[in-house]
Amino acid sequence: MTRLRVHNLAVSLDGFATGEGQSLEAPFGHAGGRLMEWFFPTDTFVSMSGHADEAVGAGTQGVDDAFAAATNRGIGAEIMGRNKFGPQRGPWADESWRGWWGEEPPFHSPVVVLTHHERPDLAVGETTFLFRDLAPAEALALASDVAGGLDVRLGGGPTVVREFLDADLVDHLHVVVVPILLGRGVRLWDGLEALEERFDVDVTASPSGVVHYVFTRAAR
Amino acid sequence: MTRLRVHNLAVSLDGFATGEGQSLEAPFGHAGGRLMEWFFPTDTFVSMSGHADEAVGAGTQGVDDAFAAATNRGIGAEIMGRNKFGPQRGPWADESWRGWWGEEPPFHSPVVVLTHHERPDLAVGETTFLFRDLAPAEALALASDVAGGLDVRLGGGPTVVREFLDADLVDHLHVVVVPILLGRGVRLWDGLEALEERFDVDVTASPSGVVHYVFTRAAR
Repeated sequence: MTRLRVHNLAVSLDGFATGEGQSLEAPFGHAGGRLMEWFFPTDTFVSMSGHADEAVGAGTQGVDDAFAAATNRGIGAEIMGRNKFGPQRGPWADESWRGWWGEEPPFHSPVVVLTHHERPDLAVGETTFLFRDLAPAEALALASDVAGGLDVRLGGGPTVVREFLDADLVDHLHVVVVPILLGRGVRLWDGLEALEERFDVDVTASPSGVVHYVFTRAAR
Repeated sequence: MTRLRVHNLAVSLDGFATGEGQSLEAPFGHAGGRLMEWFFPTDTFVSMSGHADEAVGAGTQGVDDAFAAATNRGIGAEIMGRNKFGPQRGPWADESWRGWWGEEPPFHSPVVVLTHHERPDLAVGETTFLFRDLAPAEALALASDVAGGLDVRLGGGPTVVREFLDADLVDHLHVVVVPILLGRGVRLWDGLEALEERFDVDVTASPSGVVHYVFTRAAR
């Protein structure tokens, strides 16, 4: 059974998953890198960063890395919002934008990009981006089809995650609460009153100051 | 040096310190008792609840109690908002309301009640309520005067705490994040962008599922 999983979704203590003023230069807006500072030192991130000359073990391997590492286990496809793929809005001016990730994106599997503005499939390295205008359940059906029996990762951003939670399609939700107050930006939790009733919740504080929340869909 | 301290201020994971629809019957609105469920089993609460026949040790004495217990140590006065004192709004219809706490309130020291509608001082048991229309700094000066050299506790509600944080008068802020989503109510964190820059932050997860955040004013 394919599960839909969210990993490493960082929010500030006041609930913002990204800051205000997102742009090509500032994908998290005024939040800068602060929501992901817990992630950058982890072995999982260091290994993903294309430093092929770094030995495994070059990053930290504590609590933060233990949670971070789960993001890549058993994943056969990803679904992401168009805003995660790129900073453009509206119709594509051209199709030269190939994502943030260079010629070997870290996905290594099909990625369904949700957009009202479809464009041809795009292969970059081992990753194929499928640009589709689909409702959440349809997107999950497509991603499950191409995931080769593995799980599907819901890659964000926060608005997309909210839509899938609202449609009750998410099986596993890993949220990282960072002890900063952003004050403005895109809220993760809006419209999700009583979400906890549908999930078992596990809470782990890290020495780094972040808190890992794992929501696992309760048995029905 | 008198410090101003906030203790046991519970918020939902989405940042609400109280629910919608507060009333005499529902002081936390639709949140009911859910924000304080971590507190009720603690020895600190059990001992405060007037069960004089209960031995000390009748409640839990783990992480949650360790944090809860700090609320009463070294406190000589409290400041609270008028909404914490009672459910009435606007001018007092009469002065028969003597607080929620019966004839021996748990404060045992002067309590400054912030209200635009002053009324005579009111002694109930060992507690004297002083109803004053004061700005945060003035209220703190009065409470410090009557605290006998001890600290002052800022008792809430959330709007009052926000005002004192905004005026940079708080030395110690203990917030308890409860893993529920209330969706609506009074937000604690609004307007406090970058609060963490003024404080050292300590984070402890409890087996009960709540997370204790202690903000201590950074040295200046």
